[in-house]
Amino acid sequence: MTESIYIGRTILPQLQQVLQNLAFSKVAVLVDENTLHHCYPLVKSHLPEHDIIQINSGEEHKTLQTCEYIWQRMTELNLDRWSVLVNLGGGVIGDMGGFCAATFKRGMYFVQVPTTLLAQVDASVGGKTGIDFHGLKNHIGVYKEPHAVIIDPTFLNTLPQRQLKSGYAEIIKHWLIADATAFEEQRHIGLFTENWEALIRHSVGIKSAVVEEDPLEAGYRKVLNFGHTVGHAIESYLLEQPGRELLHGEAIAVGMLCEAFLSVKKDLLNRRELDQIETFMVSIYEKVKITEEDIQALSQLALQDKKNTRSTINCTLLQGIGKAVWDQPVTLAEIQESLRYYQLL
Amino acid sequence: MTESIYIGRTILPQLQQVLQNLAFSKVAVLVDENTLHHCYPLVKSHLPEHDIIQINSGEEHKTLQTCEYIWQRMTELNLDRWSVLVNLGGGVIGDMGGFCAATFKRGMYFVQVPTTLLAQVDASVGGKTGIDFHGLKNHIGVYKEPHAVIIDPTFLNTLPQRQLKSGYAEIIKHWLIADATAFEEQRHIGLFTENWEALIRHSVGIKSAVVEEDPLEAGYRKVLNFGHTVGHAIESYLLEQPGRELLHGEAIAVGMLCEAFLSVKKDLLNRRELDQIETFMVSIYEKVKITEEDIQALSQLALQDKKNTRSTINCTLLQGIGKAVWDQPVTLAEIQESLRYYQLL
Repeated sequence: MTESIYIGRTILPQLQQVLQNLAFSKVAVLVDENTLHHCYPLVKSHLPEHDIIQINSGEEHKTLQTCEYIWQRMTELNLDRWSVLVNLGGGVIGDMGGFCAATFKRGMYFVQVPTTLLAQVDASVGGKTGIDFHGLKNHIGVYKEPHAVIIDPTFLNTLPQRQLKSGYAEIIKHWLIADATAFEEQRHIGLFTENWEALIRHSVGIKSAVVEEDPLEAGYRKVLNFGHTVGHAIESYLLEQPGRELLHGEAIAVGMLCEAFLSVKKDLLNRRELDQIETFMVSIYEKVKITEEDIQALSQLALQDKKNTRSTINCTLLQGIGKAVWDQPVTLAEIQESLRYYQLL
Repeated sequence: MTESIYIGRTILPQLQQVLQNLAFSKVAVLVDENTLHHCYPLVKSHLPEHDIIQINSGEEHKTLQTCEYIWQRMTELNLDRWSVLVNLGGGVIGDMGGFCAATFKRGMYFVQVPTTLLAQVDASVGGKTGIDFHGLKNHIGVYKEPHAVIIDPTFLNTLPQRQLKSGYAEIIKHWLIADATAFEEQRHIGLFTENWEALIRHSVGIKSAVVEEDPLEAGYRKVLNFGHTVGHAIESYLLEQPGRELLHGEAIAVGMLCEAFLSVKKDLLNRRELDQIETFMVSIYEKVKITEEDIQALSQLALQDKKNTRSTINCTLLQGIGKAVWDQPVTLAEIQESLRYYQLL
């Protein structure tokens, strides 16, 4: 785990010290209306003098247009390369704020303060920044490590159950790709925990270890994409259908089931293991209704996935629970088949 | 000089080999109407199968809107992370194409084929990419080295004299900051040369050496900003005034004179050296007419310069001819005084 990731319930007071270590010129805090209301009050007293940049919440605002607004505000506030942007929020704030900071005057400081479980165990670690573009998830972005990540489980108290479940999907993913023992324990315990801090620390540990070995996703880092080929496609597709939008983790939960099915089909996972995953996931996540028409349309989106090469769909699959293999070619027909499997669950 | 920079009149045929070494998936060539007409015919036969992305020429199109168009075309062409964007053109094509490639799916390959003298000796070397934003030069961008730079002086045959002079300003800058002997020779020879290849090789050598020592401009690389504090301000200001637009090098020529004047004022350069620079520059570049009103307005722009910290204007000045010092604080009043010196030349 990189030294710049701080985890704990008493970590916020260290924020001021972390910033001071950067010898910053100015500080701005990026929030949306939710984090301004629920999270900013917890952070405010631990920040030096600062300005606020507020945007609208939601994946539908993770766009170039919002970046233009953020860059404009940064310019008005006279931020320079030695200023710090504190990204206070979930994955959208972290990804987009990180991208805006990484590109403003060719790069200023930024610090991630993730406030959702999803952002704490996934988006804030690993240096991926970006925005959606014409309906394609994280289509434009850069790799850039934040200068620090401050993870305080206290924020989770403000989070609706649906948001917690969404983040929990990435925790499950980390078990499935890297820790069979933890999965075995948890699938008997069932949903959730009394000790978020320990769970987050374990999950961030898995992700950090992967990222450290392969920061630019040349190979090994792709294990983290398990569930994301089908998951991103379904997420992008339903984002365009008012009333049907899924949270990221909800889409990844569907994607993991589909891709576990594909793992069985490719003889990498056995049927008993798939059953265990199925039972555990179905106990936590509501079924997402998809029609045959949906399957036709959303499987096309899998062709635009960033992980693909030369029009082959590359998928990360499970080689038994606790291990993943990447760049597994799958066909459009197989993607559709996996969605029909999910449909029939 | 990094190994990935190729210079010479017989270099274009190597383009195909350079691309093949990348094991690319697809190739797209970014052009404007000028380079499509004048330069593409020289390159076409040395490229594998490829698509063309065409944009409008000119600094006024170095915008987010044009990036959006380029990203859209890349998406339609199904480019992926293993595709190559060949940027065939001057600084605008190189900077903006580099930025679009560096951010598309978090980074695809790109190769610079600079076709102007300015881009050959300056923009294509050093990994700075970016676009203008709300009238501010290169305000949004990233550092990202191209995978290769192919510099062929043959392109200069298609270039108007005004464009050659613009590029020559950056060559002069390289002498002034790093090679007193070369400056001394050239100031007697006067404008231009029979051997562009040697001149380019020498100039790229100076720039590469600086960039290699300090790629992210933590300190030493700032010597390359000589002339650019006042130069960028005047360039941005006149860009907004139809009919008064300057080429980049023309603005930098003014900036170098103003900043040489400031170097004398700060006792870093002596008056005799300033006279030598003055005489040489005036023999090459037409005087740019600026009024007292212009001076008031454009000096304000120097406050937004990326090189500044905490609202101080930081300038790179000459410490004698052949050496530069950076982060020299200057006041708004001094910037204005230097512009009045230029006005009276």
